[in-house]
Amino acid sequence: MGAHPETLDSYLNVAVETAKTAGQIILSNFNNTKTVEHKGKVDLVTETDKACESLIFEYLKTAFPSHQLIGEETSAIDGTPELTDAPTWIVDPLDGTTNFVHRYPFVCVSIGLVVDKVPTVGVVFNPILDELFTAVKGRGAFLNGQHIYASEQQDIGNALLATEIGTLRDKKTVDSTSNRINNLLFKVRSLRMCGSCAMDLCGLACGRLDLFYELGFGGPWDVAAGALILEEAGGHVFDPSGSEFDMMSHRVAASSKHLKQALVEGLEGFV
Amino acid sequence: MGAHPETLDSYLNVAVETAKTAGQIILSNFNNTKTVEHKGKVDLVTETDKACESLIFEYLKTAFPSHQLIGEETSAIDGTPELTDAPTWIVDPLDGTTNFVHRYPFVCVSIGLVVDKVPTVGVVFNPILDELFTAVKGRGAFLNGQHIYASEQQDIGNALLATEIGTLRDKKTVDSTSNRINNLLFKVRSLRMCGSCAMDLCGLACGRLDLFYELGFGGPWDVAAGALILEEAGGHVFDPSGSEFDMMSHRVAASSKHLKQALVEGLEGFV
Repeated sequence: MGAHPETLDSYLNVAVETAKTAGQIILSNFNNTKTVEHKGKVDLVTETDKACESLIFEYLKTAFPSHQLIGEETSAIDGTPELTDAPTWIVDPLDGTTNFVHRYPFVCVSIGLVVDKVPTVGVVFNPILDELFTAVKGRGAFLNGQHIYASEQQDIGNALLATEIGTLRDKKTVDSTSNRINNLLFKVRSLRMCGSCAMDLCGLACGRLDLFYELGFGGPWDVAAGALILEEAGGHVFDPSGSEFDMMSHRVAASSKHLKQALVEGLEGFV
Repeated sequence: MGAHPETLDSYLNVAVETAKTAGQIILSNFNNTKTVEHKGKVDLVTETDKACESLIFEYLKTAFPSHQLIGEETSAIDGTPELTDAPTWIVDPLDGTTNFVHRYPFVCVSIGLVVDKVPTVGVVFNPILDELFTAVKGRGAFLNGQHIYASEQQDIGNALLATEIGTLRDKKTVDSTSNRINNLLFKVRSLRMCGSCAMDLCGLACGRLDLFYELGFGGPWDVAAGALILEEAGGHVFDPSGSEFDMMSHRVAASSKHLKQALVEGLEGFV
């Protein structure tokens, strides 16, 4: 049961306007010294995360008063709401907070709309690199208005892999993380870690990266927009085991057009 | 025995002009499909690497006919020349070739001048992000003309670490790589891999990163400029064992102002 095309246009337009406005707040604070709070030992939050989430919620509530909202910072206080069939905006006001604190340029606003639990609109905006990734279900994916496509790479030996180490530092998690890396280093061309799950998914969507996985990330706000953008670019998003992707599971794997099976095999026994 | 200040100005000016001109070649080819040759299984070279090195050598030879030249691509054919006391330009025409092939935005031109084996001028230019890092010995470090400084971080637990996995994929190398990562993940805030050694050193110089190490990189062209830029920004460059840095050794570690000892301890037993 799809929404009317003009309705989808209005969803996308509001999401883009909202992401750009929040992005300006991130950009204008990027080079400042930040007041950092800790959600966990290495999980950070700043005033800018909170200001951006407030602004984004305000814009979305005003435009779509009947829609549900899930945001990273609100969820950190109240717990993550259950995802229902209602149109639900899933928001990471600042993905890459550690990068933001350190002025490392991979930070973005991520805004996704899920309808009947189906990702329908995705917007990821990196104001530092001025990269706006957008997608509407069935209409393809775009970077700054230009169609983008996942890579055609056929050989995992030529693939560029991205991963992130997440926010847990117990021995079991860290050992699993380094064992997975060890196993995959024998298979891929090279490895990147940029510190933003949403930017990794968009990196696959525009063909810069071929493979990505992350286990134990914060919540659906890290993936809701990026997963749609990548799928609309022709890539694949799935559970690291190879089974169906569950946005609420804190586990994601992603590949370019032809490398899903190779990544599933590379992760087998390690996820 | 330092050079005359005006001589140093002329060295810097020529290096900057040369790096910017080569950077334009990189930028104009960045979004094209590349013809890739392999120097090793995962060590790549493109026409752009070679065109940039030719151009850079031409500019430097014309400006300073008596100076020596060491370049990555020339060395790949003829072997790396011995570093003498003569003024020697050490050039990586395109650091981050894998990124260039994949259109991942961490690529740069790196041009360093070593006099009496002492790094004297360093220029690193990333034409995609439009970041020009420069330093002259004793005069501080700059990003796009603004003074930059290494981070003041005192606690390794709040430090952002960068490393790269290099180009060897034998079991001993890969196991050492993942064991080092495992050990350091218990100590630092997070980990980044951008795919360019020179950009990592410059990332420390401007305070985005706190720690970096790489073992088994290509040659002195990866570090000649970046090491000077970081030291002029107040950071430290040293051998991963903690002993003195040797540009010809294919091993480097680097820290912000106060974290050298903490990184040496974190690498102890793993290098």
